[in-house]
Amino acid sequence: MPRNNDPNQQTGEDMARARARTSIDVRTVRDYLYGGRAEWNTHSKVAQAMIQDPVFDKSQIYFMTRSERYKRALAMTSRIFELQEQQKLSAHESAIAVMLLDESVPMNLHAIAFEPVFRLQGSKYLIERYGKLIANRGILGCYLQTELGHGTNVSQLETTATYIPETQEFVINSPTLTSRKWWIGALAKTATHGVVQAKLILPGNKDLGPHLFFVQLRSLEDHRLLSGILLGDIGPKAMGGFPATDNGYAIFDHVKIPRENMLSHFAQVTAEGKYIQPPHAKLSYSGMLYIRSNMITSGGWTMAKAATVAIRYATVRRQGNKSDGLERQTITYPSVHCRLFLVLSHAYVFIQLGRNLTKAFTVMSTQVASGDTTMLAEMHATTAGLKILVTTTGIQDVEVARRSMGGHGYSAFAGLGRIYAEYLPSASYEGDNYVLDGQVVRAALKSYKNLLSAKDPSASLLSPSSYYLRLLLGEPVKSLSLTDASWKDPAVALLLLEWRAALVVQDLVRNQNKPDASANQRVSKAVSEAFVAAQVVKMIRELDLPAKDRHVVVELYRLYLLSTVETSLVDLLSFGLIGASEETNDPTGSLRMEIAELCLTLLPNVIGLSDAFGLTDWELDSALGVYDGRVYESLWNRVHAEPLNRSEIPAGYEEYIRPMLQRGQRLASSKL
Amino acid sequence: MPRNNDPNQQTGEDMARARARTSIDVRTVRDYLYGGRAEWNTHSKVAQAMIQDPVFDKSQIYFMTRSERYKRALAMTSRIFELQEQQKLSAHESAIAVMLLDESVPMNLHAIAFEPVFRLQGSKYLIERYGKLIANRGILGCYLQTELGHGTNVSQLETTATYIPETQEFVINSPTLTSRKWWIGALAKTATHGVVQAKLILPGNKDLGPHLFFVQLRSLEDHRLLSGILLGDIGPKAMGGFPATDNGYAIFDHVKIPRENMLSHFAQVTAEGKYIQPPHAKLSYSGMLYIRSNMITSGGWTMAKAATVAIRYATVRRQGNKSDGLERQTITYPSVHCRLFLVLSHAYVFIQLGRNLTKAFTVMSTQVASGDTTMLAEMHATTAGLKILVTTTGIQDVEVARRSMGGHGYSAFAGLGRIYAEYLPSASYEGDNYVLDGQVVRAALKSYKNLLSAKDPSASLLSPSSYYLRLLLGEPVKSLSLTDASWKDPAVALLLLEWRAALVVQDLVRNQNKPDASANQRVSKAVSEAFVAAQVVKMIRELDLPAKDRHVVVELYRLYLLSTVETSLVDLLSFGLIGASEETNDPTGSLRMEIAELCLTLLPNVIGLSDAFGLTDWELDSALGVYDGRVYESLWNRVHAEPLNRSEIPAGYEEYIRPMLQRGQRLASSKL
Repeated sequence: MPRNNDPNQQTGEDMARARARTSIDVRTVRDYLYGGRAEWNTHSKVAQAMIQDPVFDKSQIYFMTRSERYKRALAMTSRIFELQEQQKLSAHESAIAVMLLDESVPMNLHAIAFEPVFRLQGSKYLIERYGKLIANRGILGCYLQTELGHGTNVSQLETTATYIPETQEFVINSPTLTSRKWWIGALAKTATHGVVQAKLILPGNKDLGPHLFFVQLRSLEDHRLLSGILLGDIGPKAMGGFPATDNGYAIFDHVKIPRENMLSHFAQVTAEGKYIQPPHAKLSYSGMLYIRSNMITSGGWTMAKAATVAIRYATVRRQGNKSDGLERQTITYPSVHCRLFLVLSHAYVFIQLGRNLTKAFTVMSTQVASGDTTMLAEMHATTAGLKILVTTTGIQDVEVARRSMGGHGYSAFAGLGRIYAEYLPSASYEGDNYVLDGQVVRAALKSYKNLLSAKDPSASLLSPSSYYLRLLLGEPVKSLSLTDASWKDPAVALLLLEWRAALVVQDLVRNQNKPDASANQRVSKAVSEAFVAAQVVKMIRELDLPAKDRHVVVELYRLYLLSTVETSLVDLLSFGLIGASEETNDPTGSLRMEIAELCLTLLPNVIGLSDAFGLTDWELDSALGVYDGRVYESLWNRVHAEPLNRSEIPAGYEEYIRPMLQRGQRLASSKL
Repeated sequence: MPRNNDPNQQTGEDMARARARTSIDVRTVRDYLYGGRAEWNTHSKVAQAMIQDPVFDKSQIYFMTRSERYKRALAMTSRIFELQEQQKLSAHESAIAVMLLDESVPMNLHAIAFEPVFRLQGSKYLIERYGKLIANRGILGCYLQTELGHGTNVSQLETTATYIPETQEFVINSPTLTSRKWWIGALAKTATHGVVQAKLILPGNKDLGPHLFFVQLRSLEDHRLLSGILLGDIGPKAMGGFPATDNGYAIFDHVKIPRENMLSHFAQVTAEGKYIQPPHAKLSYSGMLYIRSNMITSGGWTMAKAATVAIRYATVRRQGNKSDGLERQTITYPSVHCRLFLVLSHAYVFIQLGRNLTKAFTVMSTQVASGDTTMLAEMHATTAGLKILVTTTGIQDVEVARRSMGGHGYSAFAGLGRIYAEYLPSASYEGDNYVLDGQVVRAALKSYKNLLSAKDPSASLLSPSSYYLRLLLGEPVKSLSLTDASWKDPAVALLLLEWRAALVVQDLVRNQNKPDASANQRVSKAVSEAFVAAQVVKMIRELDLPAKDRHVVVELYRLYLLSTVETSLVDLLSFGLIGASEETNDPTGSLRMEIAELCLTLLPNVIGLSDAFGLTDWELDSALGVYDGRVYESLWNRVHAEPLNRSEIPAGYEEYIRPMLQRGQRLASSKL
């Protein structure tokens, strides 16, 4: 086979060759990932419309200030609303368009943070009066919870809403510096109204804790701030993340709102100032559960982007040892591909998990609407655990992918730096992962105690998220007798992970007075991983694809299971769940070898498996992840946009460089 | 004790109280960290001069474009040179000033990348002709190695330097797109000259591989590009890193340079085009060893910054459970403080390791200068392993610290996002960590084979970096009988880590035909950690501090050792080095409890231990890491600089927001 000596030419050939080797039908797997052909078609239609529209051009984003990025976000949002009207996009299609934007736009917070809370918790009166305005964006809203001094711990919020029976008004006030609302998306510049979390104070200085109030912030005439309200932007985010979002602060100086503006679907204050208890306090959580469910899916797609970019670049990048005149494609190095295929497997798993969870959420919502809250606790435990897992894993995966690309991975044009910066806060928002760990652990301990204190303890008492606890009802565990062949069986991996979860929970109960510093993290991880492993085994069982495609996707799911077992080895070994086998002294060796072999088996199909995500070059926006593999051309074509390249002589030359050179030359010659 | 109800007031009190509880003498420990009082005084003098100088103000950096940051970098460099002259700063003091800049300035690459290579490898002729110009910055240089298509693998560089005997010239050429020099710091806009790595081609098309050539790039008259040379900036870096550095590309179109411009200290081309072999090929590495040694120290200080910021914020931030009317300081949560104290311990360890390595480098340089290269191999193995360890650990530590701070950690004003973005590429530059792992493994295997093939194998054959291999000369290992008390003894941790290193190397030799995908990483880590553990035990032994300070610093070093053992548990368990003790079923439990207790012991002193780094608010530039603890005021004071806050109505309102609101209001009323 003739080989090219020009590495740039070679890249396109390498990519074409890799595609030719693919044995799966990419379209079939793609439809599976999208939950059906129809959904893919919808996605694709929206994406194509946007790609052709210059408003959605991304080529200048790295050279824009935050103010410019903000304005661009407004322009894009505005264009989506135009498309919605002109092309009769459905609500679902519009949501896809916003998701495809790849930029957090302020007005989206109206739809995802403000409107759901308003609809779920607003009184009939409020919904009648403002519902249509909100639905048509005649007013723009934001959701004001976090304060400068407090975030996750809602009970400590300081903003007050004091009821004055005489005028039937609430007075919203920020009594201290730390009570200022902070981090609120779309608050600084965009929103005209907001739902404010504030401590309800009733006559007699009774503090009823945080409640929600509907407050107008800006005039609808000229967008000016209303009296008593001071708003501003809290400044740039780390690593340039979320540049287009006007995360804001708010200071309320005794702002009066009518009594009707309390969101009183679940709790009310009478005209005289009496408090009427909410019937189902927990119901107010379900909005958060919805957001967390969505985070599983979007986390999966974040991993998909990282995997696609890094696998494509590793396919065309050649480094090191030569074979037939060419250096090796970096993807052929096991230390490179094993890292990347894990990311690929995570993407497949979390995309499916997210879809299942969203379905479950829909079922739950219907039940809750009819007063049945039985699913709420399970959904809460499941989404909390998965939220931690998907964000922790995803953040790490994006960096694993970026780092696998070597030096060029640090170019902004590689695209993964930006994805990382934007995904990073997911570990803190919607519940800080370290705080959520505690909730997962509490749910696990509750299930454990319920099970063991039951009159007739049996597996039927257990929900899916605590099903692993059934193992504690049987014989005490002994070392599982594993052979090399055991690793081929997904059920073995699942059993190990379930045993591990059961034993760490048992261990925590036994040492409850003396937990070590990382106990919560270890237990939470074990519990969530056992749950996910059970789901993955179910995915394998139910996988409805033609045999040749099914086979490959199953390998990917097996990789997920085995790599999860590998990261659990400390627990498995310390509990004696695996021990020295007869075949080898080191019980971890055969597992690691099986993983290495599985990765080699997957190698010919990873381009196909990542193509199946259906991510366009516009979506990826990565010079190293281009579909045609011509990465060097792509990098080269992008550098011309850099403003520093507009002039041959840089600004600062006359002022600083020239005097320095002249002085140096003088000194050098005078010393001769 | 009266407590404050205003969380903002409380912060200052909490910090003062934490300082009052400190039992160590901060100045004594600080002098230890700086290697003596004199060095601290020098550092402090330089820092104070810079803090008072508005040129070094940092308040606007997050709002500047790259072009503005570039110009600011020139201004700062220029000011340092002025100070150098006016205040008679020594070379050492100037180096401190550049280090304190906290910004990679282009002209620094003249000093750290260009000048050392030129001096080490330039001929007597070149040094006579250009040495003074270079020393006085009458010309500004850069070092051109990496190309668009290749980085770490120098042998595959494509730029050519073809010798023409007729004119006694080399022709420097970029034959392909991928041969373009890329990523070269200071190349795009600043440097007037460069040292170019290019394949030396001698008559008869003989390719001698990469050699170095001195090439003028820009006119000294007007800074314009010389004929045949095209330079430009390669664009922004991921997460906004290194904004002020003009990392550039270069295209050479048959650029002619005289024969004398080859850097021929180690290899020469005669006038006729004959090649004269270098006597000591390895000597050209020593520059890289120097840079890597410095990376250990600077990595330690990066960890120091992260630890200081996060520990201070956790000291004043209160969240969750209430005790005596106040929420708990987050630093009192074991899951928070154990994470952060590890970072603190890493900082102490790597600062000392760096100092020792720099001393060793000085000794080696003297030896090499007199022709003795015996230390070279050991220095190479040691610096490679430590470079991997310090960068991998440091990158992780900065993010651990950032994430411990919750939501506000994602504000740019928290300061750690920027440190992360700038430290991230250290995993790839000066040798990609994954490639270096292979070199560490090769060195370990060589030592192993040398030892076992020796006529009389003995520990005396081993260098410090392979001393752990002595264990293989004795009895085969059995499970070490550990009690809870064992963990108090640093020698136990060291022995475990040395055994682990010895056994992973032995294991690799036995499975050499079938290594798993992560074998290199595992072996490299085990080998380096055994080396560092031995160094830390030595640090403990030689620690010359008053008893009360010594005691605390020893605890911190013990934390380093034990946490390293904890992260090695998979190996320790799978090799059977530790097993179930008589006291407990889970051998990992007592280790984890010892770590938790050690952290609690350290708790009263961590503010003191981080104050001992002597980092000023100007150096840290973090609203959450301010010395006085008044973090909320500090955050608040910073937001006013955000350009979005200049106007009440944002740009884009008339064009996008107003029409959308009006349309929505129309629609809502028409549907009523």
